[in-house]
Amino acid sequence: MPADFGRRREALRRVLADQGCEAILVTDLLNIRYLTGFTGSQAALLVRAAGEDGTVVCTDGRYVTQVAEQVPDLPAEIARASAVHLLEKAVADGVGSLGFESHVVTVDQFRTWEPLVSPSRLVSTPHLVEALRAIKDEFEIGRLRAACACADAALADLLDQGGLRPGRTEKQVRRDLENLMFDHGADAVSFETIVATGANSAVPHHRPTDAVLAHGDFVKLDFGARIGGYHSDMTRTYVLGAAAQWQRDVYELVARSQAAGRAALVPGTEVAAVDGAARRVIADAGYGDLFVHGLGHGVGLEIHEAPGIGQRGTGTLSVGAAVTVEPGVYFSGRGGVRIEDTLVVREQGPELLTLTDKELTVV
Amino acid sequence: MPADFGRRREALRRVLADQGCEAILVTDLLNIRYLTGFTGSQAALLVRAAGEDGTVVCTDGRYVTQVAEQVPDLPAEIARASAVHLLEKAVADGVGSLGFESHVVTVDQFRTWEPLVSPSRLVSTPHLVEALRAIKDEFEIGRLRAACACADAALADLLDQGGLRPGRTEKQVRRDLENLMFDHGADAVSFETIVATGANSAVPHHRPTDAVLAHGDFVKLDFGARIGGYHSDMTRTYVLGAAAQWQRDVYELVARSQAAGRAALVPGTEVAAVDGAARRVIADAGYGDLFVHGLGHGVGLEIHEAPGIGQRGTGTLSVGAAVTVEPGVYFSGRGGVRIEDTLVVREQGPELLTLTDKELTVV
Repeated sequence: MPADFGRRREALRRVLADQGCEAILVTDLLNIRYLTGFTGSQAALLVRAAGEDGTVVCTDGRYVTQVAEQVPDLPAEIARASAVHLLEKAVADGVGSLGFESHVVTVDQFRTWEPLVSPSRLVSTPHLVEALRAIKDEFEIGRLRAACACADAALADLLDQGGLRPGRTEKQVRRDLENLMFDHGADAVSFETIVATGANSAVPHHRPTDAVLAHGDFVKLDFGARIGGYHSDMTRTYVLGAAAQWQRDVYELVARSQAAGRAALVPGTEVAAVDGAARRVIADAGYGDLFVHGLGHGVGLEIHEAPGIGQRGTGTLSVGAAVTVEPGVYFSGRGGVRIEDTLVVREQGPELLTLTDKELTVV
Repeated sequence: MPADFGRRREALRRVLADQGCEAILVTDLLNIRYLTGFTGSQAALLVRAAGEDGTVVCTDGRYVTQVAEQVPDLPAEIARASAVHLLEKAVADGVGSLGFESHVVTVDQFRTWEPLVSPSRLVSTPHLVEALRAIKDEFEIGRLRAACACADAALADLLDQGGLRPGRTEKQVRRDLENLMFDHGADAVSFETIVATGANSAVPHHRPTDAVLAHGDFVKLDFGARIGGYHSDMTRTYVLGAAAQWQRDVYELVARSQAAGRAALVPGTEVAAVDGAARRVIADAGYGDLFVHGLGHGVGLEIHEAPGIGQRGTGTLSVGAAVTVEPGVYFSGRGGVRIEDTLVVREQGPELLTLTDKELTVV
C-alpha cells in the first residue's frame, strides 16, 4: 500500500479551516516529508486550505530530480530560500491569513519575513502537523510493524548466538545487536543502543562501555530499528546465569506495571491516567520514587513524538496512536529493570508491535 | 590537557562587551557544552559580561549529579524551564541588556519571554558562540586529531582485510568500516557512512545499498568517527581491479584540485578564494559544471559548522579553523571521484589530520 499524501494534506486542510487560515507555510522537514514524501534537506511547503490548487512544494537546485520523483502529485518550485519564496508566492496569490510553524521558525527567520508580509496576515499555528502525525494511518503502521519485527528478529538472533554471556562487553553486545538489525533490513538504528549490565542497568539511559557482563547481572537492552523513516523502540532486561530473589521480585513488579500500562491503552483515556495505571503498581509496592521517568511516548517519523505519556501529560489517547509503554525500577548501584513495548491504540484493544517474549529470562 | 571552559567564557565576554550586552542567555545545547562541558539534553546558561560572578548554568532534576560533575566551576540552578528561569534571574539581577541566540530561539519560545522582560532589554546576538567555536583551541584539535586517527586506522584495517573487493555490497563495506571505527575507539560515527560503487559513486551523497562492488568500479568512501564530541570527516575513492584511463584522468584532476585547495588554506584568505583555488583546476579542465557542491566546511562539535567554504562564502580563514577540503567530479551514470581531508589552519601552513594516502590506489 503506498502512502496517501493527498489524504494527509486533506486532513491538514480541515484543521486549517478551523484555525481560520487560508493557507499554511510548512517549514519543518519531517512535517514536509509526512505531507509529501519529500526527504531532501531543504524545503518548504505551501498548503492552501481551499484545495490542492495553489499547493506547492519548494526546494533548491540539488533536489530537482528527487522532488519530481518523490512528489509527482504537486508542482515543485526551485529556489535557494524556499520558505521566503513560498511566503512571497502566498502574498502574491492574495492569501489573507497564512499559518506558520511558530514552534519551528526562529526569531531570526521570522524577522526576514516581516518586511515581506503584513504581520497581521501571519498566524501562529504550532504543532498542527505533529497533531495529525500522532494518529498513524495503515501505511505508517505497516512501517512501524516492519521496524519492530526487525528489532525482534535481531534480538532473537543475538540470544540464539549466545551473544549475551559473561565475559562480553556492553560495547560488543551493542555492536552485535546493531549489526543484526542491519542484517534484518534496518536503514539505521533508531537511537544510540543502550546496553547496560550489572549496576549500570540502574542508569536509565546508560551508554555502552567496556564493562564486562558477569554472572548474576541484570542486562538491559533498549534499542530500535528505523525502516522507511519509521522507528521501533523496545527494551528487554535479562538475567545472566541465575536470578536472585530480589531480581525476580523487581522483574515481576515491572512486568505487572507494564501489563497495567498496556491494558490502559484504551481510546479516550487521559494519557496521565495511562501513566498512572502503570505507576500505581510500582508505587503500591513502595518503589514509586525509583520509577524516575514518564511511562512512554509516541513513536513514528521521530523516535519521540506526540503523545507524551507521563504524569503531567495532557490529552487523551486516540485510535491509531503509536506509543511506547516502558516502566522501570532502578536500584542505584545495584541494578534496574525496564520493559518496553511499542503498540498501536486500536478500538478492540492495543496492537502489540514488539513481539519478543517478556517473561523473566535467565540466559 | 583538560578543556579550559573558563577561558572560552572569557572570550565570549570580550565579544559581549563589543555588542553592548551586560549578559547573554545561551540556549543552544552545543554552545552550552562548548562553554561549560555540560552534555545533558536540557539546559540554559547565563554568562555575565562583567565576569564569572552571576554566571550560572541551569538544568532540570534529571541532571543534578551530572551538572555538578561536569561543571564544577560554575553554580548550577535546577529548574524545569531552564531558559525562563535564567531570564527571570537576569531581570531580577538588573541586567539591562541581555543578548539571546535569535538564530536558535523559536517564535513561540520568544513569546513566552515577552511578558517577563521589557523587549528593549533583549538584544538579538546570533552566532556569537558559533563564531568562537570556528577557531579551535588545542584541546579541541587534540580531539579532532584523535577522531581522524580513528578513521584512518579503520580504513587501513578495511583495506588490509581485503574489505574492498568485487562481490561485496555497499552495505557490507559500510558496516565493516563502522565496526572498525568502533574498534578503534569511536563513540559514534560522524554521519551516515557513504559507500558508493560504480555509477553510484557519481551521486555525491549516495546512501549504501545492496549494490555489488565490481571489477573496474570506482568505490567512494565518505565517513568519520566521533570522539569526545568531535567529528572527523574524510573521503577516499578507490578503483577495483584495474583503472581505466578516464578513471586515472579524473582522479588525477580531483587530486590536483584538492591539493590546490589545501595549499590555499592560508590565514587571512577569503573562503571564497579557497573554494576558487580548487574549483579553478577543475573548471580549467572543462569540468566545472560537474563539481556541484562547495569545497568544504568547518568541523568540530558539529559535522558541519563555521566556516563554510564555498563560492558564495564570506569571511576569511583564521588560524585554528578546522575545515574539510573535498572537491569532487561526478559523471552521472558512470562514476565520480571525491577526495576529502580534515585540516587545521596554522600560521606555518595547514596541519593535515586525516593521514590516509591519497595516491590513486587500485585494490
